[in-house]
Amino acid sequence: MARASEFDLIGRYLADRGARRDDVVLGVGDDAAVFAGDDRPLLMALDTLVEGVHFPADLPAEWVGHRALAVNLSDIAAMGGEPCWALLGLTLPEADEAWVKAFADGLDALAQRHAVALTGGDVTRGPLSISVQIAGHANGPVLRRDGAACGDRVWVSGRPGDAMGGLAVWQDPAQRDRSRWQGLQHAFVAPQPRIALGQALAGIASAAIDVSDGLVADVGHIARRSGVAIALRAAACRPSARLRHWLGDTAAQQTLLAGGDDYELCFTAPTGADAAVLRAARASRTAVRCIGEVGRGEGVWLDGEALTGDAAGYRHFSD
Amino acid sequence: MARASEFDLIGRYLADRGARRDDVVLGVGDDAAVFAGDDRPLLMALDTLVEGVHFPADLPAEWVGHRALAVNLSDIAAMGGEPCWALLGLTLPEADEAWVKAFADGLDALAQRHAVALTGGDVTRGPLSISVQIAGHANGPVLRRDGAACGDRVWVSGRPGDAMGGLAVWQDPAQRDRSRWQGLQHAFVAPQPRIALGQALAGIASAAIDVSDGLVADVGHIARRSGVAIALRAAACRPSARLRHWLGDTAAQQTLLAGGDDYELCFTAPTGADAAVLRAARASRTAVRCIGEVGRGEGVWLDGEALTGDAAGYRHFSD
Repeated sequence: MARASEFDLIGRYLADRGARRDDVVLGVGDDAAVFAGDDRPLLMALDTLVEGVHFPADLPAEWVGHRALAVNLSDIAAMGGEPCWALLGLTLPEADEAWVKAFADGLDALAQRHAVALTGGDVTRGPLSISVQIAGHANGPVLRRDGAACGDRVWVSGRPGDAMGGLAVWQDPAQRDRSRWQGLQHAFVAPQPRIALGQALAGIASAAIDVSDGLVADVGHIARRSGVAIALRAAACRPSARLRHWLGDTAAQQTLLAGGDDYELCFTAPTGADAAVLRAARASRTAVRCIGEVGRGEGVWLDGEALTGDAAGYRHFSD
Repeated sequence: MARASEFDLIGRYLADRGARRDDVVLGVGDDAAVFAGDDRPLLMALDTLVEGVHFPADLPAEWVGHRALAVNLSDIAAMGGEPCWALLGLTLPEADEAWVKAFADGLDALAQRHAVALTGGDVTRGPLSISVQIAGHANGPVLRRDGAACGDRVWVSGRPGDAMGGLAVWQDPAQRDRSRWQGLQHAFVAPQPRIALGQALAGIASAAIDVSDGLVADVGHIARRSGVAIALRAAACRPSARLRHWLGDTAAQQTLLAGGDDYELCFTAPTGADAAVLRAARASRTAVRCIGEVGRGEGVWLDGEALTGDAAGYRHFSD
């Protein structure tokens, strides 16, 4: 598997390019770019999904459509914003009507649920890949990666690791249709962007990111951008019962830490904000739990041990 | 060559998807989508370029970078808008540092020239393709495809056809390095989005489009969206001397009509606006000329003959 960092590193040649503009509040390096709108800040993000890299080649078109929008909505969620408009660039090896209809249905259902309009883009021929651009507003303070402070608590929503467990189920024909694993598969196939939670946390959380590369890797992004260390507690990073059932305790915890593709929110908040965090979670009907603390230093630690290298996230479908 | 329409048709399954929103002024079907901003209208467009489909595989990375941004800037130009911010999704088969540096240089130079900030996006692994999303403001009336009215004149900027002629030069190793064809090649390799002209035409032109599919095909988009016929005059559709020199008179005119990839602006304006059009052209230092008239009916006509089928534009690098 190719490490994400190889391409992330090369991305640095593209940072700080183009003109300097006073209306760019936050450029490259967070989940979305932030611009000074005429009234409210504007948020924009763009993600590309490549078949065989970001989703398995046999994933039904409906779920490819869902995922293409979900990963972008998740970027807006991580900024605490309200998604409004999406543009689509779809590249297809052939003009397959049935595939495009199903793809559009998957995208449409999720867009309707979050009141997002699909307002353009183009369809071209080439190897299957999808680029979705999402734009929206921040109606309150913007959640950024660089705001974590010493003493803050670290929180995560949902059940990180379930998505990667679900992918393994999906890839095993003998298990794919067994009802006991449907919940795990659902976590992979139909990630739910945490829009309501993100908006509820605006003004409460000190930093936020969505969990796409893997919990430790994404916590690491917050630590690096905020100039702090983050200490996770293993006892709090307990995988779901279904993931432990599927993988066993040890592999399940490894998957929770490094799996990725969860599209949960990981965020930090001052200790005094515990009650506000829990109210935000209740209001958005999203489970959250505290998994660690922010401290002086750098890096990500688990029960006092530095987490680096292979626990830090990777691309999953690479050859 | 696969006709563009095959993929355009399939794109219809993606139109009118997602939620209805009052703040969507213009969705699928124009050069860019238009949203009600808090003060000024917002413009957004997204285009994907695939190697071997939208540019030859041996085009130097610097010009691929230029093109990826240019085709998007051209969409904003066709709306009469001011481009502000670009996001990039770059998919690469391998983490090739030298290629990405040259690509970023090409993109950067054009972005600087138009005061556009490059503010994010991602780099992933896969077959080479580039999606650029551009956003900007309309500082005056928005130019649309659907505003042409009977009696309007039809205008075009620059020298349509030169880009396709330049591609043919590029693809001929025996001619590529000859200085007499450098101007033609430049038209293909370094298209210049007509941002200044588009902004100068806001409030003057009744409809506009950028010439990407080919002059007749793009004039046809204006005719269809406006519910009118457009009559072109062959004598006014005279190819450049260099294109006639390269291809001969007959092939040169065919290329002017159907070539594509010009990224010139084609627009309509009331007869009484001739002087204003010429002032806008002078102010933006862009040559324009009148090539026809808008009338009742439908379709695109050349000296009284209906233009359909093979003259109507196609994809150029398809197998």
